[in-house]
Amino acid sequence: MASRLTPERESELYTAVLDLLREVGYDALTMDAVAARTRSSKATLYRQWGSKPQLVVMALRHDKPVQLGEIDTGSLRGDFEVILERTDDCRLEKDAALMRGLAHAVHDNPDLLQAMRELLVEPEMNGLDEVLQRAVRRGEVAADNPALKLIPHMLIGAFVARPLIEDRPVDAAFLTAYVNAVVLPSLGA
Amino acid sequence: MASRLTPERESELYTAVLDLLREVGYDALTMDAVAARTRSSKATLYRQWGSKPQLVVMALRHDKPVQLGEIDTGSLRGDFEVILERTDDCRLEKDAALMRGLAHAVHDNPDLLQAMRELLVEPEMNGLDEVLQRAVRRGEVAADNPALKLIPHMLIGAFVARPLIEDRPVDAAFLTAYVNAVVLPSLGA
Repeated sequence: MASRLTPERESELYTAVLDLLREVGYDALTMDAVAARTRSSKATLYRQWGSKPQLVVMALRHDKPVQLGEIDTGSLRGDFEVILERTDDCRLEKDAALMRGLAHAVHDNPDLLQAMRELLVEPEMNGLDEVLQRAVRRGEVAADNPALKLIPHMLIGAFVARPLIEDRPVDAAFLTAYVNAVVLPSLGA
Repeated sequence: MASRLTPERESELYTAVLDLLREVGYDALTMDAVAARTRSSKATLYRQWGSKPQLVVMALRHDKPVQLGEIDTGSLRGDFEVILERTDDCRLEKDAALMRGLAHAVHDNPDLLQAMRELLVEPEMNGLDEVLQRAVRRGEVAADNPALKLIPHMLIGAFVARPLIEDRPVDAAFLTAYVNAVVLPSLGA
């Protein structure tokens, strides 16, 4: 019977995958390289994760410190404050560098795009939706407010536009200002 | 003395540049190819535009049907309605295809990024700013509303996030809904 990996060993593997991703990029990151770096067998990697895109995306997901859906302070403003507090500038910079590399790879690898959508984007969107639905149930946001479905668009805009327009990366101070000036007013909160 | 091109001839040249851009992409678009396609001399092209990135960006700019700053209906909502009316779906799709190609090229060509910033992004941002400043002078928007500086971020978010999240391109109906749900509420208008 195939033994399952311990959480510590899994975490070690994910860290190695992200290190490799930053060092060589997605295309040059092979299952052989991951096996060599982590002293594991390729058979184990394939048994556990199925494919390279899934392994890469699960590594990205593991690296996320916060599950959005679990944040529940009792007010929408408070929930956003916690989300922003757990976002530090150093982390944002590392994430941005990783995402730039992956944005490129996604064009040539539809399976990577698919895995990112299913394993990374959708769980984050569902988590955000839980936070928003709690605000609706508390009466902070109208259930038919059309902005409820547009929060990811607003946030992605902040991340993409700042480097483009202002030639500066997104930092926690900018994100806080953006949430207060754009996200919360659009929700009428 | 160097003769200047007529507006008709200039327009013809810009159309040829955009056609070539869609056909072969930025890297393969050479001044030789533009000269051959338009039956003009390379000397004329360089004299008039200085360089390939400048020629390409001026062609993109020429293709913009609306100068935002000139729109002045008397209300912010009305100004946005005119901007959105002049935006048709077919055009949005052509623009998006062009932009995807250029987003790639911009990574390897800092001079293209520079030309796009100076000749395309900044004039558009200044035009948008004129529209917004008129709304401030009419008392529709508070002069210190922090969202005034964040409209490009919101709009870029709409364009980038929709294909990413919903797997659909931006169309005029979506843009209208987004402006009403996000942009105008953040301005308190």
